[in-house]
Amino acid sequence: MTKVHLDISMSLDGFVTGSNEGVEKPLGDDDGRLHDWMFDSRTDADAQVLAETYERTGAVLMGRRMFEVGVTPWRDPPPFHNLPVFILTHEPRAKMPMRGGTVYTFVTAGIEAGLQQARAAAGRKDVGIWGGANVARQYLNAGLLDEMQIQLIPVLLGGGVRLLDDLTPNQIELKRTRTIETPAATHLRFSVAKRVGTLSRAPK
Amino acid sequence: MTKVHLDISMSLDGFVTGSNEGVEKPLGDDDGRLHDWMFDSRTDADAQVLAETYERTGAVLMGRRMFEVGVTPWRDPPPFHNLPVFILTHEPRAKMPMRGGTVYTFVTAGIEAGLQQARAAAGRKDVGIWGGANVARQYLNAGLLDEMQIQLIPVLLGGGVRLLDDLTPNQIELKRTRTIETPAATHLRFSVAKRVGTLSRAPK
Repeated sequence: MTKVHLDISMSLDGFVTGSNEGVEKPLGDDDGRLHDWMFDSRTDADAQVLAETYERTGAVLMGRRMFEVGVTPWRDPPPFHNLPVFILTHEPRAKMPMRGGTVYTFVTAGIEAGLQQARAAAGRKDVGIWGGANVARQYLNAGLLDEMQIQLIPVLLGGGVRLLDDLTPNQIELKRTRTIETPAATHLRFSVAKRVGTLSRAPK
Repeated sequence: MTKVHLDISMSLDGFVTGSNEGVEKPLGDDDGRLHDWMFDSRTDADAQVLAETYERTGAVLMGRRMFEVGVTPWRDPPPFHNLPVFILTHEPRAKMPMRGGTVYTFVTAGIEAGLQQARAAAGRKDVGIWGGANVARQYLNAGLLDEMQIQLIPVLLGGGVRLLDDLTPNQIELKRTRTIETPAATHLRFSVAKRVGTLSRAPK
């Protein structure tokens, strides 16, 4: 069955984007250190974690802000291995087919509608929520995530955008299912369970 | 040489104390889950991590707030294996010798003076900073920590006191030196290095 997984790199002090983020500097100050496990510091184990993520993913969901600051540096063709990418936004916008097969689709009907479209596109594969923090938190708080993979990076950014903030934790129970340590990251995987008390009240 | 190490349990969302902390509830809501690796969920590997920490430590430093909310539940004799405990505070107070050998000593002259006293008491062993968040941050920001061991707990508390907040990260570089995974915790050990640029400006 299709799972919904969050995949994101986070500093030890909890930031997924450094300070002074913007179009000029998509990940803010110190962005290099958060993602270095995919680039200069990549080991075979890091490469394996990344390859697994692409392999399991049938569609990508992301927030408008991540798209806006990312679309230019991602270039064309973008680095999404031709996966369909759904962007949650409030402003309707026409699909953007890119070279190489990636299509950016804009969804204005909210996180559940976005997930429904992504699920349909993913087929038997999983839906990957790849950021940013705001969208990730919305799915986490809504109890719609099945799994989180947090690449914990041994740096202190001291500022920026926190991932695990403004949570309603009574709805969230985690179970750590895997830890892989590499020089540049601790790849922590969790399954996300909902508390029984919350589930029974959920308007399903 | 004596090292100064921080040892503390932190939730995945960065809290070392849950919400609603106070004398009645020293670690706030959900305190049980943050420290369960030392109690009901303790495995041999967790016990080993804890034993190592006691073994290396010759003196303990803590903040006034941690002492105030902890002193009653710690009872007498307190669970510090007879280590001398130095409490940083603004109000002078007489030493409190406890049964079994632990002596609580109150230091009003600031973090450097507290560290100096603890170093002297520790002899060839290390000084352990065992909390709370405020004191830990002061030592981290002042560049006085040599090592951090963070027991990362796979829970989301959603509120409380954050450890790694209000940092001045340009002075702090981390190197992860060990990771031990147990069912209830990921025991992450880091050495703390200072940047050369900062060191050269340090008023030593």
